Amino acid sequence: MREMDISGDQSGQAQSQERAISKIVIIIAMQSEALPLVNRFQLTEDPHPPCGFPQGVPWVRYHGSYKDLDISLFWPGKDPTLGVDSVGTISSALVTYAAIQALKPDLIINAGTAGAFKAKGASVGDIFIISDCAFHDRRIPIPVFDLYGVGSRKAFETPNLVKELNLQVAKLSTGDSLDMTQQDESSIISNDATVKDMEGAAVAYVADLLKVPAIFVKAVTDIVDGDKPTSEEFLQNLSAVTAALDVAVEKVITFINGKSLTEL
Amino acid sequence: MREMDISGDQSGQAQSQERAISKIVIIIAMQSEALPLVNRFQLTEDPHPPCGFPQGVPWVRYHGSYKDLDISLFWPGKDPTLGVDSVGTISSALVTYAAIQALKPDLIINAGTAGAFKAKGASVGDIFIISDCAFHDRRIPIPVFDLYGVGSRKAFETPNLVKELNLQVAKLSTGDSLDMTQQDESSIISNDATVKDMEGAAVAYVADLLKVPAIFVKAVTDIVDGDKPTSEEFLQNLSAVTAALDVAVEKVITFINGKSLTEL
Repeated sequence: MREMDISGDQSGQAQSQERAISKIVIIIAMQSEALPLVNRFQLTEDPHPPCGFPQGVPWVRYHGSYKDLDISLFWPGKDPTLGVDSVGTISSALVTYAAIQALKPDLIINAGTAGAFKAKGASVGDIFIISDCAFHDRRIPIPVFDLYGVGSRKAFETPNLVKELNLQVAKLSTGDSLDMTQQDESSIISNDATVKDMEGAAVAYVADLLKVPAIFVKAVTDIVDGDKPTSEEFLQNLSAVTAALDVAVEKVITFINGKSLTEL
Repeated sequence: MREMDISGDQSGQAQSQERAISKIVIIIAMQSEALPLVNRFQLTEDPHPPCGFPQGVPWVRYHGSYKDLDISLFWPGKDPTLGVDSVGTISSALVTYAAIQALKPDLIINAGTAGAFKAKGASVGDIFIISDCAFHDRRIPIPVFDLYGVGSRKAFETPNLVKELNLQVAKLSTGDSLDMTQQDESSIISNDATVKDMEGAAVAYVADLLKVPAIFVKAVTDIVDGDKPTSEEFLQNLSAVTAALDVAVEKVITFINGKSLTEL
């Protein structure tokens, strides 16, 4: 499968790869995933929309400094009519786009909970750094359009971070459904994915479009190929696993502090 | 099913509903759908990205005047790596967002080809004005999240336009795949949709978020519940049906000219 490089390693960006990372944007889909990190990094909710943000959108920015880093955490907010988290690819793509346009960050971190496959060795509570993102619910059976639909992209590579923090690395497959059809499963297998989420490949698409390096930290709330229904297992484990995600993201951010992109 | 109102009929917008429509943004996913309209309205490709547009994205704006209207047609462009049209919900959502932010149009028109169901009375070449948009591939089986996933939204109502031009009105269901699984079909039936496309509900989502009225003109390239494989029928009919779409959109634009939103 052809893959697109979002390592950010463009010629004009060589210089920015060498200086210490300064501005980080974290994209998180759910409030329950976001708040532990907001507290941990003592971020405060920005009452004014960042430059270029439209009025009236539910998107929330939490902002602050942590060590030498300027951190903005964006959460797409609650759906204005229904009041639930604006999960999924479209809202995360829009928020990632608007955040990059407003802040021009050095690095995007998409963190969140996810499903995973025990057949690939995953367990509830596992933390993964993602090597590759792809979609599993965009089937377009016309030559080349089929590859566009899959939209496979490499995450920014962080070999030192992975080694130092002793993290597992795996591939991610993204779709807009919490459940999994037979066709989804075939595509996930074809994507060689261990982890299944609802936002990652969309964040990767936008980061690629705007040439910002992106990394992905995913914590497993449910075993997709297990006995329990996904939605039940997801809700049961959400609170405990977001605590594990929170600890992992802090370790990742602490490792990043003071380093350049090439040192990750 | 709960539905959200994107009629643009907000209290603060009453005034803008009464004055003649001036600025229109047309969102079209494929170049082959866009070019006949570009020629018909004698639009020219804007070599400079509109205010706020990022450098390096493949998005294309065609711009010009037609009668008393300022028309911008946006096409998400070719995928920079793969060279095929950037179809589907994410890129159309991003382009709609960026176009609204840059131009603050009075009205969005999403025009394009689509599949349709003969069981609902549709034939190849039919033109539909859409009354309601929803998604059929965002299954989230958790209360309220399920409704968020379906994302049903009313299009801006245009009773006079529909009557005057003698157009058919139907509901639209959107998903990121050209084919249709059994689960997609169940959701499409549940959405009561006659027309199936890959962008409409995403454009409706963004238009709703940013409070811009949106209408949808869809031309049928293939019968989803027919004998022929969708991709084959789609490619066979694409050229003839885009010509029909082109004629229909000109009639719609000509009708809109000189009228206010409330007169549509």
